[in-house]
Amino acid sequence: MRTGLQLGIAGLGTVGAAVVKLVAQQASMLAQRAGQPVVITGVSARDRGRDRGVDLSPYRWFQDPVALAADPRIDVVVELIGGANGVARTVVETALRHGKHVVTANKALLAHHGLALATQAQQQQRILAFEAAVAGGIPVIKAFREGLAGNRIREIHGILNGTCNFILSEMRTTGRDFAEVLAEAQQLGYAEADPGFDIDGIDAAHKLAVLAAVVFGCAPDIGAVTVEGIRHISAVDIRYADQLGYRIKLLGIARQHDGRGIEQRVHPAMVPVSSPIAAVEGVFNAVVAEGDFVDKVTLVGRGAGAGPTASAVAADIVDIARGCFVPPFGVRVEDLASGDDASGAGRPGHRGAFYIRLMVRDQPGVIADVAAALRDQNVSMEAMLQRGRSPGGVVPVVLTTHETDEAAMKRALHVIGGLETVVEPPRFINIEKF
Amino acid sequence: MRTGLQLGIAGLGTVGAAVVKLVAQQASMLAQRAGQPVVITGVSARDRGRDRGVDLSPYRWFQDPVALAADPRIDVVVELIGGANGVARTVVETALRHGKHVVTANKALLAHHGLALATQAQQQQRILAFEAAVAGGIPVIKAFREGLAGNRIREIHGILNGTCNFILSEMRTTGRDFAEVLAEAQQLGYAEADPGFDIDGIDAAHKLAVLAAVVFGCAPDIGAVTVEGIRHISAVDIRYADQLGYRIKLLGIARQHDGRGIEQRVHPAMVPVSSPIAAVEGVFNAVVAEGDFVDKVTLVGRGAGAGPTASAVAADIVDIARGCFVPPFGVRVEDLASGDDASGAGRPGHRGAFYIRLMVRDQPGVIADVAAALRDQNVSMEAMLQRGRSPGGVVPVVLTTHETDEAAMKRALHVIGGLETVVEPPRFINIEKF
Repeated sequence: MRTGLQLGIAGLGTVGAAVVKLVAQQASMLAQRAGQPVVITGVSARDRGRDRGVDLSPYRWFQDPVALAADPRIDVVVELIGGANGVARTVVETALRHGKHVVTANKALLAHHGLALATQAQQQQRILAFEAAVAGGIPVIKAFREGLAGNRIREIHGILNGTCNFILSEMRTTGRDFAEVLAEAQQLGYAEADPGFDIDGIDAAHKLAVLAAVVFGCAPDIGAVTVEGIRHISAVDIRYADQLGYRIKLLGIARQHDGRGIEQRVHPAMVPVSSPIAAVEGVFNAVVAEGDFVDKVTLVGRGAGAGPTASAVAADIVDIARGCFVPPFGVRVEDLASGDDASGAGRPGHRGAFYIRLMVRDQPGVIADVAAALRDQNVSMEAMLQRGRSPGGVVPVVLTTHETDEAAMKRALHVIGGLETVVEPPRFINIEKF
Repeated sequence: MRTGLQLGIAGLGTVGAAVVKLVAQQASMLAQRAGQPVVITGVSARDRGRDRGVDLSPYRWFQDPVALAADPRIDVVVELIGGANGVARTVVETALRHGKHVVTANKALLAHHGLALATQAQQQQRILAFEAAVAGGIPVIKAFREGLAGNRIREIHGILNGTCNFILSEMRTTGRDFAEVLAEAQQLGYAEADPGFDIDGIDAAHKLAVLAAVVFGCAPDIGAVTVEGIRHISAVDIRYADQLGYRIKLLGIARQHDGRGIEQRVHPAMVPVSSPIAAVEGVFNAVVAEGDFVDKVTLVGRGAGAGPTASAVAADIVDIARGCFVPPFGVRVEDLASGDDASGAGRPGHRGAFYIRLMVRDQPGVIADVAAALRDQNVSMEAMLQRGRSPGGVVPVVLTTHETDEAAMKRALHVIGGLETVVEPPRFINIEKF
């Protein structure tokens, strides 16, 4: 006889192994909190022989995760394989088609196929839960989707990728340059051998698309997210940021413009040292939501790692056991904001303040040319720094602007980049004054 | 014909009026998120004539809130009257007895009668929800009880009273003394005419008892909370804290000691300037939970005020509309930790580091006497500061200790307080190094 909620775990990497450990170790507590026993029935992974530090012998082994997803003895499929397509997607679709609830940590899958999967879950009257997909152990989906359900959210922003935050924090405290710190992060296991997914902002963009869908009630639309990573941030920029009273963070920002769609951006940004998010260092994540009744709510915690991610998976399992049925993106799929709204069609260009760094030949007249180019585009300068002289050599010149139209600023930079005295392409970083 | 979830609002102070406003203003959004319309049916308050800035004419008026609680047309009673006993308690008990769900912001009621009310709710198979009772708009109950359900929580701590945090922040930034800043807080409406409830730590103790019950799965036990307020914090202490690298905060702290119950304390504490909680200033609240899988999760936001509190009430209403049934304290009442565990019977005395301030006559030998008294109780000094001289006059002497037994430290202070050269009762403040 079956008693309790039967889980099938597809994918036994560090997170999968931690989920197995958590469910075994906390069994009696989970049973009380879930209102019924929570039992692992089946597990699946590519390599059966690998030592994962947990005893898998009590569980039925599935060589094929899709067979696990279809097995009639399983109530909930926990997908921890990863990837936007391929087997992870097949596992989730198969599980829903067979009337099972799904828990997943897969932000890429949700960012690309969230609407289709939410539609399938709704048709099957099953739960598609993904607390672990955004900000690791921080219960940000639950806190924002349910805990702030009475609010219209105007804006969210946050540090959504621990690898980038670690690299930027290390660059600042040690003064070292990007490549060197990246190598260290790879040695420490904080960055993958192929780090592009993290450092080019793709992982943060997936998370932002999912989080924006949850708080604004729209379908995730990864194509609507403007993405820029941290490869071009130099030790010089970090140093100038410090001098100007800012920290550089890779941020995800999503903003609702009334009737003009949702602006979604991932890029490095300078935030005032005094802002709460500036103090979030290393592998930690932080997410801020601003609602019309609640004002700002900030959540901080570990955004990755086996234990925190397993914690988020377990929270979803307990919800399912209790029968708490909340639509994946907060409202039924037919009530999701329309594609136009979500994709930001017709939204205005971004306005904001900017930090601009130029590498120029140290000779008279350079600043006058730069200032003229900015003036011609109506970009108003706030401050200019040129520390250190090297007559005839190359020196950095740093400017900050008042709030300005991004497109105009880029036009000015195009002109500036063409000046004979400017020897590298101009660099700019958004300044966000939260 | 009735459609949707019918609310009765008992109590129309600033929070009650904000709930009425929220439900009216966000009606279509709430209906989508709740899966059904959310409708105010009846309202009740003492004074019908008062202008509350919201139109009450669409709602049935109940002069008697207990009649509202018993009315068959109402599904959910929202109790916003306040107070541990009296009419608020009668309203909640009546509502549950008549098979209605209850949403309340009443921490005093829950801290004193939480177990009885949770038992009644369980017998009636109804929801007793209280997100608004702790930390205002921050969804701390949901985030910890549900979002961290996979964890054994080892400790929680937080800034739970915005009035005290405002006063302590103002004292630090302006250098003024307690009484003066309290008067300002009263003028600004941040403190009541009778401020004892806030500044003596009682409000924070109610919230801590409720939050501890939720995270540790025990009955709230206000009698188990050690409480000390901020009246005795002087401008001198604030200044010395600054010099020593600390901020003074009124904290609520609850800690699980394996097999030895739960330690629950509310008192002013010095926290390192570098700790995240030190940066939470003014009327903001912050709560940190530490779980075995998730590590630390921190939530920050507005801990009081009409809008944030209404936001929390609305979240509970949406949960009820969706039928999300979570026991008030996370597990069924028969599974709550036993009274002995919860009351901390047999728990060890507190150990920690301390700041000690003495007002002494500035004459030779004083420090030697003080040091001897500490040595006799095995209290180890970490630092001593005596800035400013006033030969023959009275000067402050400040000490910090290493981790020590609180009882031993108090015995030493008793001796020190009896010294002829010590002219005021010694003051001490816990140092907490989170």
